[in-house]
Amino acid sequence: MPRKGMVRMCRWLAYSGSPMLLDAVLYRPEHSLINQSLYARMGAEATNGDGFGIGWYSADRAGNGTPAIFRDVAPAWNNRNLRELAAHVRSPLFFAHVRASTGSAVQQTNCHPFRHGRWLWMHNGAIADFQRLQRDLCMAVDPALFPFIEGSTDSEVMFYLAVTYGLDQDVPGAVARMAGLVERLGKEHGVPEPLQMTVAVSDGERVWAFRYSSQGASRTLFYSSRADTVRHLHPEIDYLREISDETRIVVSEPLGDLHGVWNELPEASYVVVPSGPETDYLPFVPELP
Amino acid sequence: MPRKGMVRMCRWLAYSGSPMLLDAVLYRPEHSLINQSLYARMGAEATNGDGFGIGWYSADRAGNGTPAIFRDVAPAWNNRNLRELAAHVRSPLFFAHVRASTGSAVQQTNCHPFRHGRWLWMHNGAIADFQRLQRDLCMAVDPALFPFIEGSTDSEVMFYLAVTYGLDQDVPGAVARMAGLVERLGKEHGVPEPLQMTVAVSDGERVWAFRYSSQGASRTLFYSSRADTVRHLHPEIDYLREISDETRIVVSEPLGDLHGVWNELPEASYVVVPSGPETDYLPFVPELP
Amino acid sequence: MPRKGMVRMCRWLAYSGSPMLLDAVLYRPEHSLINQSLYARMGAEATNGDGFGIGWYSADRAGNGTPAIFRDVAPAWNNRNLRELAAHVRSPLFFAHVRASTGSAVQQTNCHPFRHGRWLWMHNGAIADFQRLQRDLCMAVDPALFPFIEGSTDSEVMFYLAVTYGLDQDVPGAVARMAGLVERLGKEHGVPEPLQMTVAVSDGERVWAFRYSSQGASRTLFYSSRADTVRHLHPEIDYLREISDETRIVVSEPLGDLHGVWNELPEASYVVVPSGPETDYLPFVPELP
Amino acid sequence: MPRKGMVRMCRWLAYSGSPMLLDAVLYRPEHSLINQSLYARMGAEATNGDGFGIGWYSADRAGNGTPAIFRDVAPAWNNRNLRELAAHVRSPLFFAHVRASTGSAVQQTNCHPFRHGRWLWMHNGAIADFQRLQRDLCMAVDPALFPFIEGSTDSEVMFYLAVTYGLDQDVPGAVARMAGLVERLGKEHGVPEPLQMTVAVSDGERVWAFRYSSQGASRTLFYSSRADTVRHLHPEIDYLREISDETRIVVSEPLGDLHGVWNELPEASYVVVPSGPETDYLPFVPELP
Repeated sequence: MPRKGMVRMCRWLAYSGSPMLLDAVLYRPEHSLINQSLYARMGAEATNGDGFGIGWYSADRAGNGTPAIFRDVAPAWNNRNLRELAAHVRSPLFFAHVRASTGSAVQQTNCHPFRHGRWLWMHNGAIADFQRLQRDLCMAVDPALFPFIEGSTDSEVMFYLAVTYGLDQDVPGAVARMAGLVERLGKEHGVPEPLQMTVAVSDGERVWAFRYSSQGASRTLFYSSRADTVRHLHPEIDYLREISDETRIVVSEPLGDLHGVWNELPEASYVVVPSGPETDYLPFVPELP
Repeated sequence: MPRKGMVRMCRWLAYSGSPMLLDAVLYRPEHSLINQSLYARMGAEATNGDGFGIGWYSADRAGNGTPAIFRDVAPAWNNRNLRELAAHVRSPLFFAHVRASTGSAVQQTNCHPFRHGRWLWMHNGAIADFQRLQRDLCMAVDPALFPFIEGSTDSEVMFYLAVTYGLDQDVPGAVARMAGLVERLGKEHGVPEPLQMTVAVSDGERVWAFRYSSQGASRTLFYSSRADTVRHLHPEIDYLREISDETRIVVSEPLGDLHGVWNELPEASYVVVPSGPETDYLPFVPELP
Repeated sequence: MPRKGMVRMCRWLAYSGSPMLLDAVLYRPEHSLINQSLYARMGAEATNGDGFGIGWYSADRAGNGTPAIFRDVAPAWNNRNLRELAAHVRSPLFFAHVRASTGSAVQQTNCHPFRHGRWLWMHNGAIADFQRLQRDLCMAVDPALFPFIEGSTDSEVMFYLAVTYGLDQDVPGAVARMAGLVERLGKEHGVPEPLQMTVAVSDGERVWAFRYSSQGASRTLFYSSRADTVRHLHPEIDYLREISDETRIVVSEPLGDLHGVWNELPEASYVVVPSGPETDYLPFVPELP
Repeated sequence: MPRKGMVRMCRWLAYSGSPMLLDAVLYRPEHSLINQSLYARMGAEATNGDGFGIGWYSADRAGNGTPAIFRDVAPAWNNRNLRELAAHVRSPLFFAHVRASTGSAVQQTNCHPFRHGRWLWMHNGAIADFQRLQRDLCMAVDPALFPFIEGSTDSEVMFYLAVTYGLDQDVPGAVARMAGLVERLGKEHGVPEPLQMTVAVSDGERVWAFRYSSQGASRTLFYSSRADTVRHLHPEIDYLREISDETRIVVSEPLGDLHGVWNELPEASYVVVPSGPETDYLPFVPELP
């Protein structure tokens, strides 16, 4: 029941680096993701209360490299189980997402992150007129993967398309082919600018974060500077000494206002973390699959 | 986590007749549906706690002939909202279903009854190896209807196939064609006996109830004798005088032990209520669509 | 996790008059209560997503004069069951409340309205430092009523205190004695301005609405002019012709901007509806019980 | 809605020993607690679907010695979040409980285990006619602790009474005084045999398990033999070599049928684990507080 013309959006966060208690990142920052679920400043809507989810890889290889996911339809801000878990679980790589539904049902299977094998996926944005494109998109998913689609979101179908197009071997290529298919089907079905996305993907080792939209006006996406860079700028902050140089956070919306920490990812580009001392984002261009 | 070899089943009830408070039928009988959700005797499993749902048509045409549905993933037996609603809502035609999942997620969109326009649909049973047949079944659904599939159950896909095959014009024919498709696809995919079903369908005026399975060993289904018949047999029961002659209940499992009330629907047949003084069940045979 | 200094608030609505489909009042107005759950303008917080509840009396005396309640911890704006129910249930008198927790758990038993016998109760506001006063307040509840307290809110305890102080015989007096006890205990425990409240109470025949706070700066409360008055001002609005002259709505926040419809209830006063052509609010003064 | 005369019961499990993935204990055994939530053999009722909860202490001192709790009203057997968590969380000491309500609301705050500071508490059983004794029991709780009571169960009040009576200094004594109070109040209020309990308590270092009832016919309670004893009896079981000698499980109902593993705790006694090579249970006698 949004006001006419309002677009509803999600917010997400990906962490990669030294094993960290989830709540240090999810709850404690000044403008934490949990706060953003209630007071998002940069989103089209202030509230993201249509569910949330986290996915995390265990430092001690519990799950054999497969991440755990915890998803719930209730708003993140009053979820006690999330708070408890976040205060007791440490992880070197985790995803968190708060949802504002763009139309599909509010149910656990429509909450992000989505998981397939060792892969995690989350998305902010939408496929315009998804109902017009939905059947063809689903049909393009590898028949062997089709039964894994449990929910009714565009985000989940995008994930299984990426898996179909070779996520296991080439993440940027697979995502580019998925985007290319959406663009092509959009044209075929009279939806000229079908795709709006910031996406995070991980295999438990690295995180890829993409920012792209058909109209070149994408949802916001920021990545933190490497921890050693931030340490230089803010020697007064103690906890920075405890984390590795390659520790990074990628977010829809910055967690705070510290100078020099947050870098905006440009339109039509992607980053991979962890990375070397030079962060280069790379161009992202849809490919025809 | 059922024991090896155990099949899990649902239980349902359809009421048609004099406007009745839902709880008179759902809660008060000796072996009511709510009790069956906890103590089903005839099902393969005693407990049906993976969700429930009700659908009802309003006596005063609220909803313009479209039924209301109320579905929840929590067990029926401890759901207060259901109890409240049932004590205050009167309806001349309603469906109720308690679910024991055959594998798909426990979520609201996987609870029965399903609704499309003025139609309600519920199902007890399963399509064997559904994951193997799922894609082809979904593809056979009318493309215009495909986006309406919200969940991940076989039951819901069966419904949209029936709508695709002409539920609006010919209920038994549409259901027969749906069954025929399932049988055919089963053979094609090496699933020789794919279909197990008792199904109830309604348009708010009549209720059709089907009992069929590929192997001829279907879940139980009973329909009550007409109220005037029961009145004859049990003159001592006062409330029978308050209900119309055509009042009927169709159930997976009888609500009590009163003699002469419950008639078993034979294998491969269906009934329609309300009906005349002679209840004839009719044969049900899958058709090739 | 509100921002420092932010007070979180609820929003409620009471309807009394011609039997009305709940959704005509809950969903359709320009700034309906459901919209307010997402975009409240007058509350301290924009979002009221910590649960909601409705209570309604049946036109046909289902429940024997006892109202039905439907309460859920999920936000109102995405609750399908509520939407369904609202589109199919007609009532001459109903309550609706969307909650923003002031600290206590988000659970069904902490959602309003509360019910006891034929009485409904809902509240916007809080008892300051409730934890300090809670035990003494609970001990002042009639021992026979103590076991009926199911949740952990100040609102529910206020209700059972009002019942203890004679709600059955004298609503304003009982509420005044409840408020007087809170004020007295506040002083005893070093909480000088303990009470903040707008409260609605009903027995299924009339609705009493109170506005009071210790510091004289209470949450907003508005009541609609009588329907015949509004008809005069807005002859262009058709549906006004279908409702009785005494039809009224009392709200935390107006449902729209129509001129002449909404009247603010002054500090320290109460109204009763239905009422005669002259609406007189009456003064509300806490009494020592 | 149990059948007349049926008593509904819970089931619980406490683990203490080598850090263990929760699911190794909660899901994998032949008759695991999760299976017991569906197929309990020894309980008065087969199904324990009115909620569940786990509490665990972190091996790495996350939480500073305070345990995490995860509680939900949905049945344990279909809860995905629980399954995920259990597959990824390792703990040297944890509690798990599946609930069959004895009357109070099904809500998160009524699920066990309860926590206060570093203490965890869970209970199977009931206080007979609790509503008659509830007010006096609540009044005996230390006023400073009264606001911590969030739910409406007898179990939670028993916990806060034990805390009131010195749980921090003397666990058996505090529990004995709590039991003594219940017995005394029972007599005063005409409830001759008020208490039925198996209780587990932990401070993160040790687990105390009690079995007692007024009538001397208590719910079942078993504790496993020390791991070194079990290793002797079952040299063929590999995983036993990976766990410490003092590793123990205390359960309402055995997790399997292995010979020599499960020892029944007698009426009116308690055990403490970890313990030395000789397991001595000790007598438990209520004391007047």
